[in-house]
Amino acid sequence: MDQLQNLTYDEISIGQTADYSKQVEETDIRMFAAVSGDVNPVHLDEAFAAGTMFGGRIAHGMLTGAVISAALAMELPGPGTIYLGQTMRFLRPVKIGDRISVHLEVTAKRDDKKIVTLACEVTNQEGKAVVTGEAQVMPAREKLIIDRPTLPQFKEAD
Amino acid sequence: MDQLQNLTYDEISIGQTADYSKQVEETDIRMFAAVSGDVNPVHLDEAFAAGTMFGGRIAHGMLTGAVISAALAMELPGPGTIYLGQTMRFLRPVKIGDRISVHLEVTAKRDDKKIVTLACEVTNQEGKAVVTGEAQVMPAREKLIIDRPTLPQFKEAD
Repeated sequence: MDQLQNLTYDEISIGQTADYSKQVEETDIRMFAAVSGDVNPVHLDEAFAAGTMFGGRIAHGMLTGAVISAALAMELPGPGTIYLGQTMRFLRPVKIGDRISVHLEVTAKRDDKKIVTLACEVTNQEGKAVVTGEAQVMPAREKLIIDRPTLPQFKEAD
Repeated sequence: MDQLQNLTYDEISIGQTADYSKQVEETDIRMFAAVSGDVNPVHLDEAFAAGTMFGGRIAHGMLTGAVISAALAMELPGPGTIYLGQTMRFLRPVKIGDRISVHLEVTAKRDDKKIVTLACEVTNQEGKAVVTGEAQVMPAREKLIIDRPTLPQFKEAD
């Protein structure tokens, strides 16, 4: 079985990087609407969205936030991380079919509180920035090597 | 049919508030894992999570972020809002069955750029803060009264 493992506070150094990417599909946007309750037609109604400045449906901005949080939780520092804070600036829309890539870089370590700061830059398949921000996390103190749970699979109900 | 409407920049005043709440169910957490790709066992595996400092499964922190973004998009300023930025501090875990309530309050308006700042405070059913932060948005310039799209419904595949 596939396994997940983390980097502990002591294993992390300033300048360390990690990458994580995801293609955003129509189903992701509809599932994000279901989870958040945000059913705005700019996300769900192609006819409405075509008449906006975006020219078509766009993903919820915070869906990109969700992908940043997954990058932190799955890659750097990985499992066991306690999420303390996040800032985000939403720079460009993400559309159906876009592949977004999160680039994380460790910019600071605070030894007294065992807190790590990471710069977060998310770009689309054209290399254009869609979100930039900063995360604050407390990595696990201990090494964790754990079985990777299966990704839940959902289907839209008729 | 139920309708959505927004507040334009000119209709918004400092001190204005709005509230939005959601009960977080196991299915929300599993759908958030599916959308983000974050399958950490602290969210998905009760046996693993029971052995952590949280004593059981917790929601992804950014799921609360998703609910903040829905409050902005559905309530204040509502549809047509352009999301510019968000800060969040994650203060307490959210567990399965918790009802989280987002309280928004307009704290600043910047007339030259038509940008509104809102304080965001999310509390649980015990009134304890789980997330605090600040949002920056650009409300729509025009009044929008639009049909509310149906909330998508998903079922977990067997």
